[in-house]
Amino acid sequence: MKNRLVYGYVGKILQSFSITLLLPIIVGLIYHESILVYIAACLLSLFLGALLRRLPREDDDLYAKDGFIIVSLSWIIISIISGIPFMVVAKLDFFSAFFEAVSGLTTTGATVFSNVEVLTKSLLFWRSFTHFLGGMGILAFVMAVIPLSKKDKSMYLLKAEMPGPDVAKLVPSLKKTLFYLYAIYLGLTISEIILLIIAKMPLYDSILIAFGTAGTGGFSILNTSLASYTVMAKIVVALFMLLFGVNFNVYFLILMKNVKSALKSEELKVYLAIYTLSVIIIVLSTYKYFANFGEALLEGAFHISSFITSTGYSIGDVNIYPTNARILVLLLMLISACAGSTCGGFKMSRLIISVKKIKRDLIRLIHPNMVKDIKFEGKSLDESVVQNTTTFMLLYVVLIIIIMFIVSFDPLKLSLSQVINATFTTFANVGLCFDITNFGAFSALSKLVLSIGMLLGRLEIFPLIVLFTNIHK
Amino acid sequence: MKNRLVYGYVGKILQSFSITLLLPIIVGLIYHESILVYIAACLLSLFLGALLRRLPREDDDLYAKDGFIIVSLSWIIISIISGIPFMVVAKLDFFSAFFEAVSGLTTTGATVFSNVEVLTKSLLFWRSFTHFLGGMGILAFVMAVIPLSKKDKSMYLLKAEMPGPDVAKLVPSLKKTLFYLYAIYLGLTISEIILLIIAKMPLYDSILIAFGTAGTGGFSILNTSLASYTVMAKIVVALFMLLFGVNFNVYFLILMKNVKSALKSEELKVYLAIYTLSVIIIVLSTYKYFANFGEALLEGAFHISSFITSTGYSIGDVNIYPTNARILVLLLMLISACAGSTCGGFKMSRLIISVKKIKRDLIRLIHPNMVKDIKFEGKSLDESVVQNTTTFMLLYVVLIIIIMFIVSFDPLKLSLSQVINATFTTFANVGLCFDITNFGAFSALSKLVLSIGMLLGRLEIFPLIVLFTNIHK
Repeated sequence: MKNRLVYGYVGKILQSFSITLLLPIIVGLIYHESILVYIAACLLSLFLGALLRRLPREDDDLYAKDGFIIVSLSWIIISIISGIPFMVVAKLDFFSAFFEAVSGLTTTGATVFSNVEVLTKSLLFWRSFTHFLGGMGILAFVMAVIPLSKKDKSMYLLKAEMPGPDVAKLVPSLKKTLFYLYAIYLGLTISEIILLIIAKMPLYDSILIAFGTAGTGGFSILNTSLASYTVMAKIVVALFMLLFGVNFNVYFLILMKNVKSALKSEELKVYLAIYTLSVIIIVLSTYKYFANFGEALLEGAFHISSFITSTGYSIGDVNIYPTNARILVLLLMLISACAGSTCGGFKMSRLIISVKKIKRDLIRLIHPNMVKDIKFEGKSLDESVVQNTTTFMLLYVVLIIIIMFIVSFDPLKLSLSQVINATFTTFANVGLCFDITNFGAFSALSKLVLSIGMLLGRLEIFPLIVLFTNIHK
Repeated sequence: MKNRLVYGYVGKILQSFSITLLLPIIVGLIYHESILVYIAACLLSLFLGALLRRLPREDDDLYAKDGFIIVSLSWIIISIISGIPFMVVAKLDFFSAFFEAVSGLTTTGATVFSNVEVLTKSLLFWRSFTHFLGGMGILAFVMAVIPLSKKDKSMYLLKAEMPGPDVAKLVPSLKKTLFYLYAIYLGLTISEIILLIIAKMPLYDSILIAFGTAGTGGFSILNTSLASYTVMAKIVVALFMLLFGVNFNVYFLILMKNVKSALKSEELKVYLAIYTLSVIIIVLSTYKYFANFGEALLEGAFHISSFITSTGYSIGDVNIYPTNARILVLLLMLISACAGSTCGGFKMSRLIISVKKIKRDLIRLIHPNMVKDIKFEGKSLDESVVQNTTTFMLLYVVLIIIIMFIVSFDPLKLSLSQVINATFTTFANVGLCFDITNFGAFSALSKLVLSIGMLLGRLEIFPLIVLFTNIHK
């Protein structure tokens, strides 16, 4: 790496991250559990951060590529540190712990545990809190707390971490943009906690389940996920999953009392249309398995909400789904909800841009001189955004194939369906899927490859590719 | 349709096509079988052609869109006429007969028959001959026989039918280009027939199997496909399948004694590299099922040759393949061999262009001002070819998903793997796949949708889209 400034930034980020480990320490103290491992991880993070900041560095400027590298490196190192409590408290091997930590931070929610109910309260808290942290973004968290660089440079970092084909600042100041985003994020999370408590969920459960909803993660604290909570609680979670799948720009517009513009959002309309249509198809495909229509509707609406937002909570057995429903769900997993939300996947906005590009190019095939810009959300898109969207799509497909191929060598002798499900559910950061309940029995190689897949999915491919190839030179 | 010239062209094409029905008549006479149905189909084609040519038409010029529409309409009508013998002789219903005819003409080779050995000699001949006809192209056949239009206009027709991201004329004259292409096609086919006879295959079988190899079709005349022929015959077919997967430009260069340029072909190198690597992986994954290494190598080399060229002949049970081998094969099916060959699928050249586009765009992400052209086969590609390649890729994925989703509703209650295999093997014009032996039990809707999929695959999507949407207006 040429630019040694990068280490200084990663050091700062690690130091800020160490603060978050105070939370499981507090929970451990409340429940009289051992907190040594969190203190150790916290100190390690602080120490490593200080070490990186002391590395000699030339005075250099920050470039776009550095944004990618800082984000990738930070996420990898923080995933390793976050895995330490799983190794010590739950006695996981390194690759399982790394998988669980990556699954948490990338808000995937796929687990290696067959029984989560035996885990300590503080470990479960930490596990769910990684969802909350990763949902909005580790760097977004750090930048909201401390200034990392001159504002115009920090934009590189935010662009590298934020999901979606194009990142727009809500307000001219980056700091203020982050403030609004976090206000929306916290506001929605706290509203959900309150509603869950009203729906008779215990406080501890409410907080952890809200963390998992906010980050669209999906780690649960009972082996049956959310099946044993009240109907009201299920409805609240289904609704909030759907809400966290909306582009936060929409909430910002609503906050600014510009409801009209908010409701005009193309992405929002397509998202809600696809959601509604999917629920109808799923209910029609599965209603015969339920005692009454209401139950079928609740399960369908909940699970589609869970799949489309890449959350991964469940309230019943999705393995009853027939093949047509499974194909629909696998598709929803890959596409996922809106850009600028906490969801994983390809994103609605990229889907819309791709469809418009197909249409434009087909017309151009017949009328070569009719070159038109592609419009999205009322504005003409820069051709580079369209180009990057197709490149992203190509890479998305290529990476899925590579991951599937490697996982298919797992000694477990997985079926084609299992390989597809394991790959899609991790790469799109969902966590729930068909024919697989947990990843504990997968080989170390599969766990590592799927972990890399989760990181690729969460960071939207480019940052990790820049880190691991020589194109940044 | 605005341009009524189109009907005149389709009429001419139907009239020329009727000649081909003389062949099964001759075969029927030799084997003393009823030839009435072929005479009827021949007359229908002639009559319909004459009718279309008599439609009133304004004097208008031929445009690119008309090329697409003429090609699509001709293929659909000829598929229906070609299906008539299956309805009459083999007592198939309309959708099964249409499926079988489309499968033949698109050189797919997927069949609705569970027992082909009971079919008449003339019907089997007709079935395999559709492979030979469709391989090089119906319009290419017609244009090689009669002049359709002023040469510069006929290029629109050829472009609409010929596979690959870009069609280059071998020589300035279109008529001569077609002459060379057909000379290569016939030359290779006759060579194969001679070698098969030497390898102790009966003459009738040799001709039909060579038709299926030349068009990379895959219809066989025994229920066990090619399993019961001699080892030498299997080697000959494996070799010729591979040869028919090569871009015919390469053979033209060799004919022009420019062997050096021929061997420089980027696409050829990538094709042979992927083939070799795939054979190694398959042999390593399956050798334990065979008595000795030689057998494993023969089966591996044969089946990969069959899958990668979208032919679909088999010499053993491919269902023994483990999941990793299956994923590799499904991938080879989708990609297929070289452009400008008789193969289906995405084509090697598009794969190469896509990979180069990914690389270029990733570099541009880091160095926005370093805009470079993409080079392929030593020449800079026009940006519109790159653009069309990504649009093709997007449509390719979207159409596969749509077909899979519709087929998943089949009352047969297919598994996810079966749906994937049925869709891939038809859309990529392969014919052979895992977990399905024939399509006879599929519903009429599935047969229709898969037939459309085969046509979309063979005509490379755009022509049919232009026909069925209003973008041509």
